[in-house]
Amino acid sequence: MLATRETMSTTDEFLSAASSLLGDRGFTTDAELIEPWLTDWRGRFTGHALGMASPASTQEVADLVKLCAAHGVPIVPQGGNSGMSGGATPDDTGKAIVLSLRRMDKVRSFDVVARQITCDAGLILQTLHDTVEAERLRFPLTLGGKGSATIGGLISTNAGGTQVLRHGSMRAQVLGIEAVMADGTVFDSLRPLKKDNRGFDLKQLLIGSEGTLGIVTAATLRLLPALADRAVLWAGLGDIRDARKLLLHAERVAGDALEGFEVMPRHSLEAVLAHSANARAPLQDHHEWNALIELTADASGADALPALAQSLLESAFEEGLVADATIARNEAQAEEFWMLRDEIAPAERAIGPAMQHDISVPVPDMAEFVADAVPKVEKAFPGTTAVAFGHLGDGNVHFHVLAPEGAVPGKWELGEGKAISAFVHDEVTAWNGSISAEHGIGQLKRDELARLGDPAQLGIMRQVKRALDPAGLLNPGKLVPLETGTEPL
Amino acid sequence: MLATRETMSTTDEFLSAASSLLGDRGFTTDAELIEPWLTDWRGRFTGHALGMASPASTQEVADLVKLCAAHGVPIVPQGGNSGMSGGATPDDTGKAIVLSLRRMDKVRSFDVVARQITCDAGLILQTLHDTVEAERLRFPLTLGGKGSATIGGLISTNAGGTQVLRHGSMRAQVLGIEAVMADGTVFDSLRPLKKDNRGFDLKQLLIGSEGTLGIVTAATLRLLPALADRAVLWAGLGDIRDARKLLLHAERVAGDALEGFEVMPRHSLEAVLAHSANARAPLQDHHEWNALIELTADASGADALPALAQSLLESAFEEGLVADATIARNEAQAEEFWMLRDEIAPAERAIGPAMQHDISVPVPDMAEFVADAVPKVEKAFPGTTAVAFGHLGDGNVHFHVLAPEGAVPGKWELGEGKAISAFVHDEVTAWNGSISAEHGIGQLKRDELARLGDPAQLGIMRQVKRALDPAGLLNPGKLVPLETGTEPL
Repeated sequence: MLATRETMSTTDEFLSAASSLLGDRGFTTDAELIEPWLTDWRGRFTGHALGMASPASTQEVADLVKLCAAHGVPIVPQGGNSGMSGGATPDDTGKAIVLSLRRMDKVRSFDVVARQITCDAGLILQTLHDTVEAERLRFPLTLGGKGSATIGGLISTNAGGTQVLRHGSMRAQVLGIEAVMADGTVFDSLRPLKKDNRGFDLKQLLIGSEGTLGIVTAATLRLLPALADRAVLWAGLGDIRDARKLLLHAERVAGDALEGFEVMPRHSLEAVLAHSANARAPLQDHHEWNALIELTADASGADALPALAQSLLESAFEEGLVADATIARNEAQAEEFWMLRDEIAPAERAIGPAMQHDISVPVPDMAEFVADAVPKVEKAFPGTTAVAFGHLGDGNVHFHVLAPEGAVPGKWELGEGKAISAFVHDEVTAWNGSISAEHGIGQLKRDELARLGDPAQLGIMRQVKRALDPAGLLNPGKLVPLETGTEPL
Repeated sequence: MLATRETMSTTDEFLSAASSLLGDRGFTTDAELIEPWLTDWRGRFTGHALGMASPASTQEVADLVKLCAAHGVPIVPQGGNSGMSGGATPDDTGKAIVLSLRRMDKVRSFDVVARQITCDAGLILQTLHDTVEAERLRFPLTLGGKGSATIGGLISTNAGGTQVLRHGSMRAQVLGIEAVMADGTVFDSLRPLKKDNRGFDLKQLLIGSEGTLGIVTAATLRLLPALADRAVLWAGLGDIRDARKLLLHAERVAGDALEGFEVMPRHSLEAVLAHSANARAPLQDHHEWNALIELTADASGADALPALAQSLLESAFEEGLVADATIARNEAQAEEFWMLRDEIAPAERAIGPAMQHDISVPVPDMAEFVADAVPKVEKAFPGTTAVAFGHLGDGNVHFHVLAPEGAVPGKWELGEGKAISAFVHDEVTAWNGSISAEHGIGQLKRDELARLGDPAQLGIMRQVKRALDPAGLLNPGKLVPLETGTEPL
C-alpha cells in the first residue's frame, strides 16, 4: 500500500503528536514490540497497525482519542488479546492504532463492607479474583482466559463463563463504568447507585459493544461473600433430554444453591481421557451424556450443603432421572471433575480441525435443539462428528463440528468448514437462537450477523453507531455490519 | 391557539386516516372520553390532545406511528396513567395524540416450567400477579399503583418498589421486549435467550426511556417460585446510622433471604398512627427511627425461616444494634406492619402541603446523607419538617419536606417549595446521588436534570435521542432536555 505524500505528512504529524502526548512508554511504532498484539491468540486474524498506544490514565486515553479524531486515525482497543472473535485485532490496512489498556491495571477503590470494587479496565481477571479473595469476597465470573483477560475486555464482550446460570454474565456484575467516547468525552457512571432513573442507561449500551461505541477505561463491580463450601456432582445420562429434566429438578430442589450445570457428550469425555494423562472418568460406565452440577453456599448455608447435594442425588435416582451419579468426595476430586469439563476444548482440538460455534437457543429448547441438530449436521456433511457441550442451564452450548478423517488443516476450514458454519448458524436462527452466545461478534461473525440478523435490530444498531461514532473511528470493521462496507474512513 | 388553514387540513387528513385505521374503538376525538387521560393521577399536570388512540395490536401501533410520522404528529404513550413525574401527560399545545396501550392487555404465552411469561404492554400489574400466582409462581416487583400500572409503563419508567433490594428493579425482571420505533419499525427481542452477544443490548436502552425512543408493546418477564413463607420484623432504633449497621448485619446473617429493608422516622410512624384508625404501633415505645425487615423463602427454604428470623433478631440484640424489636406473630400482623409503611405517603400528605423527592445516593452513604440533610433543610427553610423514609437497602429514600404551618396549599409549592426542591437536589448531587431514583424524570424533573445532570451524559442522551427519533415525535418534552428547547416539532 502506497501512501500519498499528503497522508504521509498527516501521519507523521499524528505519530509525533501521539509520542509527545504519551511518551516512550505510552506510544511506540517499534514493529517488534507491536507484532505480538497484531494477531489474536488463536492465530486466526492478523492485522497491521500504525503504532501501539499504552496510556497510563483515563485523561491520556481521552487526549489520545481527541488526537485520533483530529487526524482521522482509527482505534482498535485491546485488553488481554484473548478474545474469541478477533474483536481486538486491527485490519490489514495499517491505518489504525492499537490502544492497549494493559498499563491501566490499578484498583481504584475497594469497599469490603459494601462489597464493591472500582478498578481500571486493564486489571486482569485473575488479579481481581486474588484481590477480593484476600478479603473473603469473590467475583462471581470466571473463564479459561482469566490469566490474561482484562476487566475492560470482559465488559466490552459481555463475557460469560460457567457461573452465568446463577450469577449472570459480565453485564450483571457491572455497577458502573467509565468510558471514553469517540469525541474524547469521558462518560463516568462509576458511582454505584443501586437505583437511578435519570434517563437512558448508557452504561448498558456500552457493555457488550466491543469498543465500537466507546473505550471502557474503568468499572465498578459487585462482589459476593466468599464461598464457604461447594458440592460437585457428576451424573451419567442416556439422552440430552434427560439432562434438561435433571436441570429442572436441580433448580427445584437446590434453588439458589445451584451455581453451575454443564453437559458433555460421551465423545468429549473420551477425548479428554485420551488427551490428558491425569484424567480419570468419574463413573465406571461410559454414558451417552454427562452432567456436571455444582452447588455452592456461603457461610450462611454451608452447614446444609452436603445434605442438600445428597437429597438432590437421591431424589433424582428415585424419579429415574439419572442412570448413575456420584458426588465428589473432597475438593481435590471436585477439581478433577471440573478439569474434565475445562479440558474439552483443547482435547477436541487435538483430534484435528474443527469448526467451533458458540450458540444459544431459548433455554427450554436447548436439549431438543442438540438432539435435532447433531445428526442433521453429520448427515449433511458425511464423515464429520458434531459435539455439543457446555452451559445447558443457560441455553448455550459450544457446538463443535470435527472434520472428516484426512481433512487438510488450514484448508478444510475455508472450504467445507465455512459451509458447515453457515449450516449451523441457519439451524440456530431457525430455532430463534443466537450465533453468538458469549464470545461476541468481532470480525469473525460480522458477516454472518449481517446475513442472519434481524434487519430491524441491525438498522437500530447502525443508527446508534453512527450517532455516537459518526466518523467510524472506534474499532472499525467489528461487530456492526455497516451497509456501506467496513472501510474505516 | 389559532391553526392556519394548511395545518387544519393536514390535521383533518390525519384524524380521518387514524379513524379509518383504528376504527371507533381504536381512535376518538371525543373530548369527554379523552379528558380523564389528560391529567396525571396526582393532578399536577394537565395537557391537551388532538385525539386518543387505543390500538388493539402491535401492527396497529406500528401503522399508527407511521401515520403520525407522515403527518408530523407527536405521540404521548400512556399505560395506567399512574406515573409520578407527568411522563404520560401531553403538553398544552394540543398537537399530540395520546396513545393508550390499555386495550392491549393479553397474556401471549406463559411457560410455567421455564418460569417466563410474555404479555402485552397494557396488562395491569395486579392481573399479572394474579395470573402467575395461580400457577404457584410470583412476579417479584410490586408497588402502590399495582391496580392501574401497566407492564409497559413499568418498563418505560424502570419502576422500583419494595423488593428491589433482593430482586432488582423492573429492568432486572425483563428478559425481552417488543417496541415500535419512531419510524414504525418493530423491534422484537421477545424470544428469551439467556445469553446473546450479538451486538448492542437495545432492549436495555428502551427500558427506562419513558417512551422517548420507542413504544413498548410487549415484554417477556422472568418469574420466581411462589413464596412459601415470610418473616416480618420491626425494630426500633435511636439513629439512622444504626439502621445502616442493622442492614449490613441482616445481609450477613440472612443472605439471599433478605428481601426488604425499609426505614421510617418517628414523625412518619406517628403521622400514620394519627391518620389511620386501624393502625397500631408494633412497639410500646416510640423510637427516633424504625426499620421494617422482610425475610422470605420459597419451598426449599421455608422450614429454616422462623429460626433464621429469630437468630437475626437475637444476634442484633447481642451486638447492641437494636433498642427494641419484634417479629410479626402471624401473616395478619405482618400485613399490619407493612400497612404502616404503605400508609406513610397519604398520612404525610394529610398533614399539609409537602415537597416530595425520590432520591438516591450510594447505598453506603444513605444513612449519613439523611443525618446530614434533614437538619440542613430544616435550618435553611425555617418551620419546615423534613422526613426521609423508604428503601435504605437500595440507597433510595423518599425525602419529603412538609410546609411550615400556615402555608397556602397550591401557592407554597410554587414559591418556597420550588426553592426547597432545588436545595434538596443540590444536596443529593453533591453526594453523587440521583434526583430520580425510581420515579423517572418525565416533565416534572426535566429542567432539574438539565441543570444538574452530567453534561457528558446529557450530550450522549441527546445524540441517541436524535438518532432514534430525529423528528422528535416520541413523547416530546419528556425526560431528554434537548438544547433547542422542548418544542415537539
